[in-house]
Amino acid sequence: MNTPKALWSGRFSKAPDEMMKRFGESISVDWCFYKEDIEGSKAHGKMLYKIGILTKEELEQILRVLEEIEEEIESGEFVPDIELEDVHMNIESRLIKKLGDLGAKIHTGRSRNDQVVTDYRLYLKKEITAIEKLLNNFMEALLTRAEKDVDITLPGFTHLMHAQPISLGHYWMAYFWKFERDLKRLKAALESSDVSPLGAGALAGSTLPLDREYTRELLGFGEISKNSLDTVSDRDFIMDLQYALSTLFIHTSGLSEDLIIWNTQEFNYIKLPDEFCTGSSMMPNKKNPDALELIRGKTGGVVTGLFNLMMNLKGLPLTYNRDLQEDKKFVLENLATAKAVLEILPLLIDKIEVQEANIQKHLEKGFLLATDVAEYLVLKGVPFRKTHEIVGAIVQYAEAKDLDFKNLSMEEWKQFSGVFEEDILEILTVEKAVERRESQGGTAKKQVLIQIKEGREIIEKA
Amino acid sequence: MNTPKALWSGRFSKAPDEMMKRFGESISVDWCFYKEDIEGSKAHGKMLYKIGILTKEELEQILRVLEEIEEEIESGEFVPDIELEDVHMNIESRLIKKLGDLGAKIHTGRSRNDQVVTDYRLYLKKEITAIEKLLNNFMEALLTRAEKDVDITLPGFTHLMHAQPISLGHYWMAYFWKFERDLKRLKAALESSDVSPLGAGALAGSTLPLDREYTRELLGFGEISKNSLDTVSDRDFIMDLQYALSTLFIHTSGLSEDLIIWNTQEFNYIKLPDEFCTGSSMMPNKKNPDALELIRGKTGGVVTGLFNLMMNLKGLPLTYNRDLQEDKKFVLENLATAKAVLEILPLLIDKIEVQEANIQKHLEKGFLLATDVAEYLVLKGVPFRKTHEIVGAIVQYAEAKDLDFKNLSMEEWKQFSGVFEEDILEILTVEKAVERRESQGGTAKKQVLIQIKEGREIIEKA
Amino acid sequence: MNTPKALWSGRFSKAPDEMMKRFGESISVDWCFYKEDIEGSKAHGKMLYKIGILTKEELEQILRVLEEIEEEIESGEFVPDIELEDVHMNIESRLIKKLGDLGAKIHTGRSRNDQVVTDYRLYLKKEITAIEKLLNNFMEALLTRAEKDVDITLPGFTHLMHAQPISLGHYWMAYFWKFERDLKRLKAALESSDVSPLGAGALAGSTLPLDREYTRELLGFGEISKNSLDTVSDRDFIMDLQYALSTLFIHTSGLSEDLIIWNTQEFNYIKLPDEFCTGSSMMPNKKNPDALELIRGKTGGVVTGLFNLMMNLKGLPLTYNRDLQEDKKFVLENLATAKAVLEILPLLIDKIEVQEANIQKHLEKGFLLATDVAEYLVLKGVPFRKTHEIVGAIVQYAEAKDLDFKNLSMEEWKQFSGVFEEDILEILTVEKAVERRESQGGTAKKQVLIQIKEGREIIEKA
Amino acid sequence: MNTPKALWSGRFSKAPDEMMKRFGESISVDWCFYKEDIEGSKAHGKMLYKIGILTKEELEQILRVLEEIEEEIESGEFVPDIELEDVHMNIESRLIKKLGDLGAKIHTGRSRNDQVVTDYRLYLKKEITAIEKLLNNFMEALLTRAEKDVDITLPGFTHLMHAQPISLGHYWMAYFWKFERDLKRLKAALESSDVSPLGAGALAGSTLPLDREYTRELLGFGEISKNSLDTVSDRDFIMDLQYALSTLFIHTSGLSEDLIIWNTQEFNYIKLPDEFCTGSSMMPNKKNPDALELIRGKTGGVVTGLFNLMMNLKGLPLTYNRDLQEDKKFVLENLATAKAVLEILPLLIDKIEVQEANIQKHLEKGFLLATDVAEYLVLKGVPFRKTHEIVGAIVQYAEAKDLDFKNLSMEEWKQFSGVFEEDILEILTVEKAVERRESQGGTAKKQVLIQIKEGREIIEKA
Repeated sequence: MNTPKALWSGRFSKAPDEMMKRFGESISVDWCFYKEDIEGSKAHGKMLYKIGILTKEELEQILRVLEEIEEEIESGEFVPDIELEDVHMNIESRLIKKLGDLGAKIHTGRSRNDQVVTDYRLYLKKEITAIEKLLNNFMEALLTRAEKDVDITLPGFTHLMHAQPISLGHYWMAYFWKFERDLKRLKAALESSDVSPLGAGALAGSTLPLDREYTRELLGFGEISKNSLDTVSDRDFIMDLQYALSTLFIHTSGLSEDLIIWNTQEFNYIKLPDEFCTGSSMMPNKKNPDALELIRGKTGGVVTGLFNLMMNLKGLPLTYNRDLQEDKKFVLENLATAKAVLEILPLLIDKIEVQEANIQKHLEKGFLLATDVAEYLVLKGVPFRKTHEIVGAIVQYAEAKDLDFKNLSMEEWKQFSGVFEEDILEILTVEKAVERRESQGGTAKKQVLIQIKEGREIIEKA
Repeated sequence: MNTPKALWSGRFSKAPDEMMKRFGESISVDWCFYKEDIEGSKAHGKMLYKIGILTKEELEQILRVLEEIEEEIESGEFVPDIELEDVHMNIESRLIKKLGDLGAKIHTGRSRNDQVVTDYRLYLKKEITAIEKLLNNFMEALLTRAEKDVDITLPGFTHLMHAQPISLGHYWMAYFWKFERDLKRLKAALESSDVSPLGAGALAGSTLPLDREYTRELLGFGEISKNSLDTVSDRDFIMDLQYALSTLFIHTSGLSEDLIIWNTQEFNYIKLPDEFCTGSSMMPNKKNPDALELIRGKTGGVVTGLFNLMMNLKGLPLTYNRDLQEDKKFVLENLATAKAVLEILPLLIDKIEVQEANIQKHLEKGFLLATDVAEYLVLKGVPFRKTHEIVGAIVQYAEAKDLDFKNLSMEEWKQFSGVFEEDILEILTVEKAVERRESQGGTAKKQVLIQIKEGREIIEKA
Repeated sequence: MNTPKALWSGRFSKAPDEMMKRFGESISVDWCFYKEDIEGSKAHGKMLYKIGILTKEELEQILRVLEEIEEEIESGEFVPDIELEDVHMNIESRLIKKLGDLGAKIHTGRSRNDQVVTDYRLYLKKEITAIEKLLNNFMEALLTRAEKDVDITLPGFTHLMHAQPISLGHYWMAYFWKFERDLKRLKAALESSDVSPLGAGALAGSTLPLDREYTRELLGFGEISKNSLDTVSDRDFIMDLQYALSTLFIHTSGLSEDLIIWNTQEFNYIKLPDEFCTGSSMMPNKKNPDALELIRGKTGGVVTGLFNLMMNLKGLPLTYNRDLQEDKKFVLENLATAKAVLEILPLLIDKIEVQEANIQKHLEKGFLLATDVAEYLVLKGVPFRKTHEIVGAIVQYAEAKDLDFKNLSMEEWKQFSGVFEEDILEILTVEKAVERRESQGGTAKKQVLIQIKEGREIIEKA
Repeated sequence: MNTPKALWSGRFSKAPDEMMKRFGESISVDWCFYKEDIEGSKAHGKMLYKIGILTKEELEQILRVLEEIEEEIESGEFVPDIELEDVHMNIESRLIKKLGDLGAKIHTGRSRNDQVVTDYRLYLKKEITAIEKLLNNFMEALLTRAEKDVDITLPGFTHLMHAQPISLGHYWMAYFWKFERDLKRLKAALESSDVSPLGAGALAGSTLPLDREYTRELLGFGEISKNSLDTVSDRDFIMDLQYALSTLFIHTSGLSEDLIIWNTQEFNYIKLPDEFCTGSSMMPNKKNPDALELIRGKTGGVVTGLFNLMMNLKGLPLTYNRDLQEDKKFVLENLATAKAVLEILPLLIDKIEVQEANIQKHLEKGFLLATDVAEYLVLKGVPFRKTHEIVGAIVQYAEAKDLDFKNLSMEEWKQFSGVFEEDILEILTVEKAVERRESQGGTAKKQVLIQIKEGREIIEKA
């Protein structure tokens, strides 16, 4: 059968190899590893000298030229070439161009398969450390804010409905502890990254007497990887990081949601700083909580970065497959996003103006103290489920009469239970309600201050 | 309580507004809409003239300068400024700079909320159309390949184990039909995009007598949107596209997997074209199926593009929220990926060299014809479940003796069922097995040719 | 090397085959297909008779016994056995038990690979039809509600901040159109399901002269599948359904979010019906919007049903692989969830009590009419960007003096622009602001009524 | 406007409250917590006694009846009632039914918000511990298998193409280390769960003098939670578990993929045990790797369990929202799946029959030793990149002549480089190639045995 090949193949403007080059290149993504690639090559070169594959003079030339290349990159003199596909080939080619045969020795006992994860792990170690610092900073801002707001009372919400009064300091500390867990996850991710792959070769190790402990030491890794096949196929360290960033963004999305709602005209609990709001191109009256919406809106991108990698890893045979090239772009973007968000949030939190007078109006309405009344009865010996019924009936009665607890007369109280005495009237302020929640981890000032103290210790140790 | 604000706020190098500008900008993503933004402004201007808000002369000036701006962009003279946040503000500012007060009239009766989706929808209509063409092209390559390979027999697989012999043409046509469904989904996505938002304003429509039908006509949209609140919040058209791209990549990932496996030294069913393979930096012996691995490895990114958007849309209040700004980056990347993959695949498929002799060796081994023997018995009146047992026993017997069906003597056949006659020997070739599967949609050549004919009609109509 | 096998293998309580049986069974999921499995067997039997494989009498016996089995299932007499793995084997075994050799004929020319998708497609056609009806019903409830609330004005929101006043009827119609698009996607999913797989066999078609058109007709499918390999591997029809359910839940999640926020004590725009709220086990004062929170909270489960299937399909070789068994559980759960949600929402929407007086209070505050003032100036010839600046200045001035637009004197207006005349005072009510947004799809009553009329036509045709 | 309410509302068969009850219930999911719920109530009761809210006698009665209820549940006498919504209300109601007013005291100072996470955390601690044991067991099976197969050589793969020869023992150990990292993640998840929520109340702590340390101690938690708002909203401990299960399944999916491919007729590297394979309903010749396919096919469900939770948590306000009810179903299913898979895999791995003779045939073909030749040249002083070129040329030459390395004459070797000497012939066996890869973590037997020893120590400590 005659194949009318020309028909459709004539429609392409680019030659196949050009297409493939553009499709397959990773230099547009991995060029950011140039420092780590050079760092790795220097350590590898020193090791090759130690085991006798390079002479002292050869090593010195290689080290000198690698430093030269780094300078050329930073000055913009050396721009990577897509023809050379990735950061490794670009730098190695430059070395060979400058040193000839000698440059060609640097890849001895090394494969791009172990080289790329060496670069990646070195890079992530720096990035995670930077993010940890920013997160610490943000947590410190929360502590500071909690101290400042410990005496402000606002409704605590469940189901976005008024539940019980709480201290605003307690609220900020709730997020402090969420982020503290993210910090732990980042530390776990850092530990996962802290393993030296160099020497695993393409997949099976090397027939050369490589000294893996020596390169590990030079590069500052905590340990060397234990199995060469695992080394070149393992992407767990990237998942660990992406998971830590994902939970971090789940938390920032929830915080953003609260603040966006509190910032509405209807709530008016807080005023957001102008710097983090923007106006409308059409409506001159608008001041929108854009930073917080963007932070919430970045969550999907961060979380799906993790799922992208998981989907790509699913069902992959050992060891290296080119699918793994897709393990970087999302991560690099998510690291940048995380850093931006963690720079903005402390400033934003710091500059929030709490609208206490308006919150006060909302505290006065409704039956925020219902649990307090119930627990009052409990302490007088009424079984809890009974108290729940009694208080439910009081609420219904008061609502029907458009009254609040504090407007009820002693007779009215007694109507619902003979157990009520004058002291019921004493507990009926939201401030007292907050102060009386003194159980550990509760919202009473004393308890919040304990949290803040403990939080400070954590931050200072970090 | 004194807030030690200085402590941590002093650590930031950038001022808050600079931070926010960098965090909030979208120009690095949406600048690719410049053509559509200008196209939209031209149509909007013509309409403003039609309803008497612009004079003829004003309109002419605006149109001329918009064209000027387009040329400046294309010549590289006009480079967008991050200070101006997005494509809309950059172009409008340029217009105002050039036309003064007159330029300031173009945003009359328009908001960025309806403008951005106008741009986006115009852009997607072009992109989807381009992808449809490429997909058609690829489907044509599959047809061509199916015609060429219709007489090649290979094992059909279930569970990656030999099941029944099939025509290779039939295999290619299986994928043809999968992609034909993707084409339908792309058409549905195109239709979703084909709705004019212009005139919905910020959210509620306009007090000006805008002529939405007129801008729709000028921009070539199929219809106008029906509800202004829906118009500025609707992102279904993007989900529809991302869904279509997701199923497309699910299909290309499966095709890639098969070809990667067929290309192994162990299978050696096909030889992949050199252009789409690459070597190893360490192992001079390697020729790796990189293009196919990358295509498979891009799947996660495409699919999670959809999930990113879904996650961000989840639980968003009406109407526009800044979270929606995150609706572009993934889509633009996925469109580029899809186009690259659809350019590569037809060439790759065309150049595959089928290793018929080697496939033949694998066809001879095993019991691919077991179903044929069973159906032989059915046609002689044996209930199917019985035939399944009989043939199972024959397979076990033959395996134990290291024989295949074709080595069994007539006596041996009769040992398992008296129904076997000499004609059993006639059916025992894989070629006949393929030819005898003549039920509609079966693998017989006649049936495959019917599929190809039908496929050609679809392609020609497209 | 001696393998200390006993050490760990002794720790298992179950034998391997028992383990595998429990791990591999699908009867706990696919038993819900019993009706469709029987329906499919009846059609297949009739076809086998038509092509001469069954006698008339054999067919009659088979049909009779299949009906008997259906009754036994429905009466609870016949309970499936996990030993028989799936719905197909359970029913076929029952048939064989009752009919002996004759029962063993029913699987002639059929494989579980084509049988399972026949059952599944028949089942989904019914389910999608049921969901379409419920969705129609819900859309009708929205129409009814929109008619009722067309004269109620409330703030329209962007960024959850007051933007411009809108009609509540317009709000409900925004969701009407979102769900109308979901309806289209459901119809596309129904069409995807409407293809008869029967006759594709295990993967390659059949050597028997099966009449696929005849079974298609008997089962009421729109067409037969075109390629047997595609037929047994295709799961697009399930993705199409899951995608339609996903966008549906994205929309219900957004609607829920709005209503939850409107139901807060702070907004108090609506009162939710008691039936769809619940109380607290601890706080007698609570009335929580549980139904809406659950609807929002079901979104992840529905959306990830789609992602689960996509992840499992990624990189699967043709044709059937056991991974495909995991294609049901999520879908069946999501169908049930969708039906429950679509039963609840119309009732809930119908019973919402709008708190008009309270909304009115919020309408009076702020500068919702800023755009109107700007467009007033535009109509007097001021370029839009200028008007934006002028109105911005007025807003700032008024805010500083704690005034609203309506409290400003004519002199004050003129201070900002000489263009203002007495007629500015006429436009300064939210009701007029709504009425004046008469552009197509705008929030003016006239426009909303046009939408409602168009919506009614769609519903009536459905 | 008259609302034609009857039209659509008449179509519902169930009353709204019945609908809501079915939609809102969680008893069908959380009943599995009954043991932990009772355990929690016992501890809570003891604490109420300690702080004087219950008398000794009251406590004793409560404890006795709680034990009674547990027995009734286990004997099947007490079946939960959907009317009572969840496990907590079912058990508390039973207590009240049996003890009257006294039973009503147990909920004092407790809310379902802290109760449900107490149950959940207790439950997960047990489950994670069980999974850790099974994973340990599986890792031990891998060790055993690695010891057994350390002397078997097979091709190591990159890109599913032959790369370098490796020891099969080395392959199993690669997976050992992957699972060892999962074990660490499980331990982290266990630690996350090990925090006592009891006493956080609905959200704000309690006005009663609850002794949280005492209940913590009674329930065996490692610490108490620090902030009551965080306590009732925190779902990180569930994400941590789901993340650990996700990476575990990513790893089992990859292992399954390899074994499925190795089990094909074309590879024939292994024979899978019959117990974990199944046949075909149509093709009597099939023996399919069903268990492995199912394990691979379960990956999506496990991974999307994490994504479901993340999507639901995204953008949720503090503290408890009913969306959180959706945090269990996936987890419970995934725990069951993980346990089943971890029971099957050790048995399956143990019973694999390696087809050494067939592997040997594949080892002989091709140029697996290319890297060895290159590194031979390196050790003789040739720069690596040069060696890569030389060996590339030799491979091309040999392929053209249909020769392997071992068939080349000394003259032919010298033709490509004068550096080759007779000793090149000595290295040209795959066994030697394996043995010479003695760098740390390499595939040489000595190195694999070091890994196994280290692995055994880990297992024994666990």
